[in-house]
Amino acid sequence: MEKIEKLQLFLKEKEIDFAFITNPHHVFYFSGFQSDPHERVIAVIIFSQFPPFIFCPQMEVADVKATGWPYDVIGYLDTDNPWDMLTKKIQSRLGTITGVGIEKSHLTVERYEALKSRIPQVIFHGLDDEINNMRVIKDEIERKKLKKAAELADYAIEVGIKEIAVGKTELEIVQKIENKIKELGCKMSFETTVLSGPKSASPHGKSGNRKIQDGDFVLLDLGVIYEGYCSDITRTVAIGEISDEKRKIYEVVKRSNEESIKAIKPGITCRDLDQISRKVIQDAGYGRHYTHRLGHGLGISVHEFPSISGNNELELLPGMVFTVEPGIYKEEIGGVRIEDDVVVTENGAEVLTKYPKELIIIK
Amino acid sequence: MEKIEKLQLFLKEKEIDFAFITNPHHVFYFSGFQSDPHERVIAVIIFSQFPPFIFCPQMEVADVKATGWPYDVIGYLDTDNPWDMLTKKIQSRLGTITGVGIEKSHLTVERYEALKSRIPQVIFHGLDDEINNMRVIKDEIERKKLKKAAELADYAIEVGIKEIAVGKTELEIVQKIENKIKELGCKMSFETTVLSGPKSASPHGKSGNRKIQDGDFVLLDLGVIYEGYCSDITRTVAIGEISDEKRKIYEVVKRSNEESIKAIKPGITCRDLDQISRKVIQDAGYGRHYTHRLGHGLGISVHEFPSISGNNELELLPGMVFTVEPGIYKEEIGGVRIEDDVVVTENGAEVLTKYPKELIIIK
Repeated sequence: MEKIEKLQLFLKEKEIDFAFITNPHHVFYFSGFQSDPHERVIAVIIFSQFPPFIFCPQMEVADVKATGWPYDVIGYLDTDNPWDMLTKKIQSRLGTITGVGIEKSHLTVERYEALKSRIPQVIFHGLDDEINNMRVIKDEIERKKLKKAAELADYAIEVGIKEIAVGKTELEIVQKIENKIKELGCKMSFETTVLSGPKSASPHGKSGNRKIQDGDFVLLDLGVIYEGYCSDITRTVAIGEISDEKRKIYEVVKRSNEESIKAIKPGITCRDLDQISRKVIQDAGYGRHYTHRLGHGLGISVHEFPSISGNNELELLPGMVFTVEPGIYKEEIGGVRIEDDVVVTENGAEVLTKYPKELIIIK
Repeated sequence: MEKIEKLQLFLKEKEIDFAFITNPHHVFYFSGFQSDPHERVIAVIIFSQFPPFIFCPQMEVADVKATGWPYDVIGYLDTDNPWDMLTKKIQSRLGTITGVGIEKSHLTVERYEALKSRIPQVIFHGLDDEINNMRVIKDEIERKKLKKAAELADYAIEVGIKEIAVGKTELEIVQKIENKIKELGCKMSFETTVLSGPKSASPHGKSGNRKIQDGDFVLLDLGVIYEGYCSDITRTVAIGEISDEKRKIYEVVKRSNEESIKAIKPGITCRDLDQISRKVIQDAGYGRHYTHRLGHGLGISVHEFPSISGNNELELLPGMVFTVEPGIYKEEIGGVRIEDDVVVTENGAEVLTKYPKELIIIK
């Protein structure tokens, strides 16, 4: 519950009476309750001065309690007006309300108006930056979950690579991977992508019925969720006889990935890190074929802060977790991307994904 | 483009200069462009008096044009400020702006403020009810897609039922179904659910590693998306020797499904239809084991209007499409649900899902 206390300090400082948290990722972050509210309201109400409560449909109350949430849970029925009930509950604790914290990048105008019409005199403050700043530093428990998610990603890559063979389709490899992860009772962080031959040159391509051929690059991009935390890994393998240029491209991407990881430490900016990865690829003559940022933050969301891109001046801090995923994409030849998940430590980086990066050639 | 013209009539009537449409389902509805904007803005701007345009990231422009969209497409770069650019484009067509239509149940406070700060004098109108009213009546093209989606659902049920055998796990059946649909290049409307034995009594249960046993009910709930339109079907089968009570429960649910479908015609209210389904089950003594509404609308979303529930006074109209899915759930015994997709016709209903409903007993 340290996270709640930290937000409470912020609320006190800004004279915000309570925070109205409904983004399901934030509900999970503050309460440990993984909600799927569909069109209903599930909220964590965090007061600056009182214990918090969760407000949710009556049929979810038992599930909230089962997570070990030590505070109140207030359930409403489909026949209740949730906004009337919620504002009454809040007013009964607070008396007058002057400042309310909301997630401006999540809350809809409809819900904002529902809240505002019932407590018309208050000032609404955006909490987005503060919550993002909190989430960007992972505590020990979060790092353990991310590590476990990365282990599962390594396993999924192993399953996929073992399955690859000339004549099999991309989708067959995808299915094998996803079935194995499902059998463990886990979910993927996003739709598994297997791209072969020229299709591997498309950073956002979709897996299909193309059959793997001799001379192909096969790119596997996937992630697994462990206790609410996401991993994200990419490996690229080659099939049969491959050209010297393909070998060169692979080695350049691998060097870019490794030199970026070596450069990670507290104090370096996201921009500089992106530049380091880019310089390796530019020096090899492939600059214009590296068409995206180096990486993105990883946690409850598979894309979150920090963005490791050329226009982000943010300095890295211990506890930040993100992907390092340089790539080269040449239309005629195919693409290579090598992606790891890393956590910034006191003096460097710990790499969470461990699957080897030496070029694997499948005969 | 009839849909755009229809919205334009509404905008003129309400003195709204333009509609700002960003809900991806609505973008698809009005433009045919299936967008996945992530954190970026993709909008259809529909003017009351001028031709519309699509505003999207530059890298999506070619994809929009490929859909056959006959109007302008305006792309922005990551280095542009999309809100400045968008409001300038709009002002260059309109001169002064007085009324703007927004989707209050979708637009975030952050985006609302971004728009509002650039055109401060305007009045914002919610378009949600109007768009929902439009979407609730499916035109011929939409009905054809829904029919095709239902055919695919029938096929998926066939695949699943063929796969069922004592000793297999729920997840094995799920995987077989989802793999077959993926091979066709299609996606499921939602996560396929196979529940066996006592688990079938949980209307929102998750498939797992439970092995199918003699005497079980096995419930399969799934849907397939065809060209953006969703189907949703449930069938329940029995394994080996089943008790007389199970047979009775099955027949009661089947009768409830069939009598509801027989009662569908323009003019009947959603409430009355729900009551008809409920009466069959109540009369058989299982009223308290039918714990949800009769059904929900179906279209671009797998849950949309109309809600076929006891508190909805809405009268059915030709072209409405929804599910009919009564169920009986008895904890010790298991559950049965039989779900079809129907379209309201001029004098009755057309059932889109065709998979037989006679009790199947797998030996």
